[in-house]
Amino acid sequence: MVRLGEIEIEERPVPEPGPGQVLVEVSAVGVCGSDVHWFTEGRIGELVVDGPLVLGHEAAGVVTALGPGVSRLSVGQRVALEPGVPCRRCRACRTGHYNLCPDVRFFATPPVDGAFARYVVHDEDFAYPLPDHVSDDAGALLEPLSVAIWATWKAGIAVGDRVLVTGAGPIGLLVAAVARVAGAVEVIVSDTQPARLPLAKKMGATSVIDVSRAPGTAPGPGSPGPGKAVPLGGLDADVLIECSGAAAALEAGLRGLRGGARAVVVGMSSESHTPVPLSLLQRKEIELTGTFRYANTYPAAIALASSGAVHLDELVTGHYGLAQVEAALQAGRRDPLAVKPVVLPGT
Amino acid sequence: MVRLGEIEIEERPVPEPGPGQVLVEVSAVGVCGSDVHWFTEGRIGELVVDGPLVLGHEAAGVVTALGPGVSRLSVGQRVALEPGVPCRRCRACRTGHYNLCPDVRFFATPPVDGAFARYVVHDEDFAYPLPDHVSDDAGALLEPLSVAIWATWKAGIAVGDRVLVTGAGPIGLLVAAVARVAGAVEVIVSDTQPARLPLAKKMGATSVIDVSRAPGTAPGPGSPGPGKAVPLGGLDADVLIECSGAAAALEAGLRGLRGGARAVVVGMSSESHTPVPLSLLQRKEIELTGTFRYANTYPAAIALASSGAVHLDELVTGHYGLAQVEAALQAGRRDPLAVKPVVLPGT
Amino acid sequence: MVRLGEIEIEERPVPEPGPGQVLVEVSAVGVCGSDVHWFTEGRIGELVVDGPLVLGHEAAGVVTALGPGVSRLSVGQRVALEPGVPCRRCRACRTGHYNLCPDVRFFATPPVDGAFARYVVHDEDFAYPLPDHVSDDAGALLEPLSVAIWATWKAGIAVGDRVLVTGAGPIGLLVAAVARVAGAVEVIVSDTQPARLPLAKKMGATSVIDVSRAPGTAPGPGSPGPGKAVPLGGLDADVLIECSGAAAALEAGLRGLRGGARAVVVGMSSESHTPVPLSLLQRKEIELTGTFRYANTYPAAIALASSGAVHLDELVTGHYGLAQVEAALQAGRRDPLAVKPVVLPGT
Amino acid sequence: MVRLGEIEIEERPVPEPGPGQVLVEVSAVGVCGSDVHWFTEGRIGELVVDGPLVLGHEAAGVVTALGPGVSRLSVGQRVALEPGVPCRRCRACRTGHYNLCPDVRFFATPPVDGAFARYVVHDEDFAYPLPDHVSDDAGALLEPLSVAIWATWKAGIAVGDRVLVTGAGPIGLLVAAVARVAGAVEVIVSDTQPARLPLAKKMGATSVIDVSRAPGTAPGPGSPGPGKAVPLGGLDADVLIECSGAAAALEAGLRGLRGGARAVVVGMSSESHTPVPLSLLQRKEIELTGTFRYANTYPAAIALASSGAVHLDELVTGHYGLAQVEAALQAGRRDPLAVKPVVLPGT
Repeated sequence: MVRLGEIEIEERPVPEPGPGQVLVEVSAVGVCGSDVHWFTEGRIGELVVDGPLVLGHEAAGVVTALGPGVSRLSVGQRVALEPGVPCRRCRACRTGHYNLCPDVRFFATPPVDGAFARYVVHDEDFAYPLPDHVSDDAGALLEPLSVAIWATWKAGIAVGDRVLVTGAGPIGLLVAAVARVAGAVEVIVSDTQPARLPLAKKMGATSVIDVSRAPGTAPGPGSPGPGKAVPLGGLDADVLIECSGAAAALEAGLRGLRGGARAVVVGMSSESHTPVPLSLLQRKEIELTGTFRYANTYPAAIALASSGAVHLDELVTGHYGLAQVEAALQAGRRDPLAVKPVVLPGT
Repeated sequence: MVRLGEIEIEERPVPEPGPGQVLVEVSAVGVCGSDVHWFTEGRIGELVVDGPLVLGHEAAGVVTALGPGVSRLSVGQRVALEPGVPCRRCRACRTGHYNLCPDVRFFATPPVDGAFARYVVHDEDFAYPLPDHVSDDAGALLEPLSVAIWATWKAGIAVGDRVLVTGAGPIGLLVAAVARVAGAVEVIVSDTQPARLPLAKKMGATSVIDVSRAPGTAPGPGSPGPGKAVPLGGLDADVLIECSGAAAALEAGLRGLRGGARAVVVGMSSESHTPVPLSLLQRKEIELTGTFRYANTYPAAIALASSGAVHLDELVTGHYGLAQVEAALQAGRRDPLAVKPVVLPGT
Repeated sequence: MVRLGEIEIEERPVPEPGPGQVLVEVSAVGVCGSDVHWFTEGRIGELVVDGPLVLGHEAAGVVTALGPGVSRLSVGQRVALEPGVPCRRCRACRTGHYNLCPDVRFFATPPVDGAFARYVVHDEDFAYPLPDHVSDDAGALLEPLSVAIWATWKAGIAVGDRVLVTGAGPIGLLVAAVARVAGAVEVIVSDTQPARLPLAKKMGATSVIDVSRAPGTAPGPGSPGPGKAVPLGGLDADVLIECSGAAAALEAGLRGLRGGARAVVVGMSSESHTPVPLSLLQRKEIELTGTFRYANTYPAAIALASSGAVHLDELVTGHYGLAQVEAALQAGRRDPLAVKPVVLPGT
Repeated sequence: MVRLGEIEIEERPVPEPGPGQVLVEVSAVGVCGSDVHWFTEGRIGELVVDGPLVLGHEAAGVVTALGPGVSRLSVGQRVALEPGVPCRRCRACRTGHYNLCPDVRFFATPPVDGAFARYVVHDEDFAYPLPDHVSDDAGALLEPLSVAIWATWKAGIAVGDRVLVTGAGPIGLLVAAVARVAGAVEVIVSDTQPARLPLAKKMGATSVIDVSRAPGTAPGPGSPGPGKAVPLGGLDADVLIECSGAAAALEAGLRGLRGGARAVVVGMSSESHTPVPLSLLQRKEIELTGTFRYANTYPAAIALASSGAVHLDELVTGHYGLAQVEAALQAGRRDPLAVKPVVLPGT
């Protein structure tokens, strides 16, 4: 059996779509940081991989067969796949927060297999027809775009706002792009890796901050505590969207906010707890929240991609066949500019 | 004494700024439909002009003297004037809704004189420094831009929304522009005057609808009732911003909304009551509200104008000296394309 | 075949519960104004009864059989039935507004039969276990209580608010009760039928207003227009919940609101359009919305009934067997104090 | 000169009210934890007492003289004093968040003297007439009641909610009372001091939890980390209002929330940073905010006290003359049940 850090390509029978499901021939799948994490660590928080798992959850493809009762899709249609299918019965589902459904089945989340595969079956309700001029790559990247849209919805950006985005990974870059579309007049992106900042500008940032040498952002022997990391203080921003997962970035970002601002934590920390300056949060009455995936974003994501408001193809930094999945998973380790590798299972 | 429909130019002493006030030499003043209304009708709703009144409330100028205690502005600074100065004491002011202050003093609203004048005094707190590259005209038009920003804030536009704007007058055009900036992927503008629709596209509309021949939109003998005016039905829009003041436009717009949508009424009707399809509003649980001026919009308006997100100068359709104010007031009557005449009091 | 205004009792086979459904022996069903309307008029708005229809949608009962896959309920359990089962797939369902689902199946709404019957089948997800000390009557009346809870949620009542409720029918009475529970310090109920006002006080109103002789509330020859009906002006209320369906009540209620207030229209008008003072709504920036049924209210309704916060049994004004349904439907016509007749199908 | 931890009674001239101000003879002043903190530590966060300071900010009194321009109050009127007078000019003030005004003058916050005095002057706009049947003590305690109202407004409690309050000090007790008034069907109060819990029930809690022996709540050698303190897990509460200032309480409280819940931090920590389980906050998409004083709460506070919805007098645990201020400040140290000492400066 395959073990942690090993990849094998298996022959399996083509799955059959059940009632309300379609069979999809996968054309493109983006590689996400969580795929890398499953692959190298075998766990994310309390979730543990305890057997072989097909990775990949950012997927687009073509419908090749219909299960019983399917009425909205037809064979041959290009679709983007929203990777989570919720139960539709629980409190979360019934109140519209289906991303919080405890019984959701989500690609590449144990024990549910993902989309690094030739074929997958999926509920038709979570497969969205793609316009002709939206590429397969872009169709796959509607998934991280959804993460970004959800974050900006939570942030409640208003026309004229100044928005601070900490972290210029794939999500931070998309958040910057969407924040700009959402009416932010200033979008300031910071990162500890200066090499990524030009891409941030290309995606929509109006200014960038290199915090690679900021005090407190690179903890080590004798490093100052989190209270010292204030390179962003005084920005008086209306919104913070934290996309790095670093405590120092959250600290600095909160100091950069005006009173009454909103802060949304998207980046995932590797620690169970993060030191938060609660008295600052109280004194400024900041609203802080975090995001978990997204709900009801795909129509907006398709509209943004289709209208050219967000250029998803610019994020793609390499294509890989199914046999090269391991290289795709390791691309980001070798090169900070390998923003978004895409796997093409048919090649 | 001057009477309804008459204009006189008077010599008056230059006013003196009181505590916290500045003296402003007025450089540009936009003409608003309400100015025309005061001039020709002598009343708006319950407010009646019962003596001479200086009109004009969309103003920009240069600070030429400081009253006692002024600390933020200096002589020579170019400023835009927010025309209403509220009491800062009442419930509305204390809760941030200062546009609803019953004791507000607002330019050109009886008995307060307006800005068709060489000099005005104004509270420094409501005079905003203008960036060098924002023109005097644009500085004046921050006022109608504020109306549009306020309407879109009330509308709660989210990234990816489809927005319907009924009416392509100056406010409708600016609303279309701001809605686009706010993340609307589709902005549909309708008007009964097809000549205005190309300008709507220039300002940001993604599509336009000519309703000049729509049933029910041009009431007359034998015209159908409001229930028949449904050329916009089926749009399934997320937001309606009604800028025409016509009952038929509101009716059609509401029919064009999806369930759970928001509708904001900006256009002012000449009737005391408007027939509203309440059962439709209930069945779709539409949130309907109206706007009255604006509050806290000038910083955002300056940001939009300064960043080039909204092109205010494109709205200006003519310049007039103080001696030509009457021509400026009547420009719109003669020509539906005379969107925004601007008076330059110094010429 | 049975015709408009006729009632017949039919013997039908006991229905079989499908997957996820339960068979329920109905113990109590409240009579709602809409039942009366279907019975006497045969239509509500665009919905038309074009065949025999079992009425009744406010129901409680006992589970007597389980369909395949039922996991949360068991035989013998007392349940309240939420009468609408939505599709769980459309935009409305997925965003939590399942009351707006176009494909909802709702008791006693053509062509779906209702609950004036010995047995019904229903989705287990919309059948809620009843605590022992909540009576069958109260279990049935969780339905109108849900309407009231939904209205107060929409109204956004805050602790300390002054709330105006126009109309003291069953819904208005429950709205008054819930508004009080929601932290309203003043709850003012008005009605044109003074006989109902003492019950309003019993349910939670802090004061009542008899508008039976108010100018403009009883239109007739020479009656003033809607603009004259201002017996509630000056109340400066924070919230209006309109429960009468009368244009004059809405008009008066809107005049009774402070700037920035919220108004929720629950009462259904018999007219397609209602004259609304839009300029007033604009000048005060009132937020107006309407309600259509409710979503996700049953848990709160059970909590209110179970804790004694709202006394549902006090609303019941008579019990009727299945053979007396016609008398139950006509009780309200003969007596304005016949607030809530309840049908007990087992008797 | 007086030093840290020393109290002196000084004779000073009676102050003269300026424009818009009134002179108030102080009748009652509550002792707040912050007074004790100033007295014993000489600082709160970044604010430092560097000279003599009159303490006390929860005050009621009688108007004894009017400054120029006062129009709403008259001599002899009993008033409650909202202790902070904001600038009315800054962004915070203009948007209704005047509690965040950086230039606010607030009783007993350096360098502004407080109300442990025979006379104070105060802006008439922040002095509220008291109904006859509201006692002087209750008039003073409208201030902590305002803190509680603000917290519940921020929490957005809806009818039927389950609310968790951690900490049963004066603020926690009032929060419990207001949460109940706001429609919470369950209000659960926890504290590490079991002696306070009966009072919590008296004030409105529906259940109480003694966490005095909970793992992790009493850190010491070998105590578990914050991740272990989960005595409140599984409550599935809709709202958390943290009133203890303890990291373990926040941790436990967050674990007690359902997905999509709101958490409001009112209690002030003595640490600059608090470890927060951000991944939990993300996974549940909890909205977390903190409060700083309050804005626009006094009218609601008076309504609650006046209507009997909240019983402020029950909180008072002792009266002290001006000469006994030190004993009042130290009452809470000696006795956990000394909830609210009140100073009567006239005695």
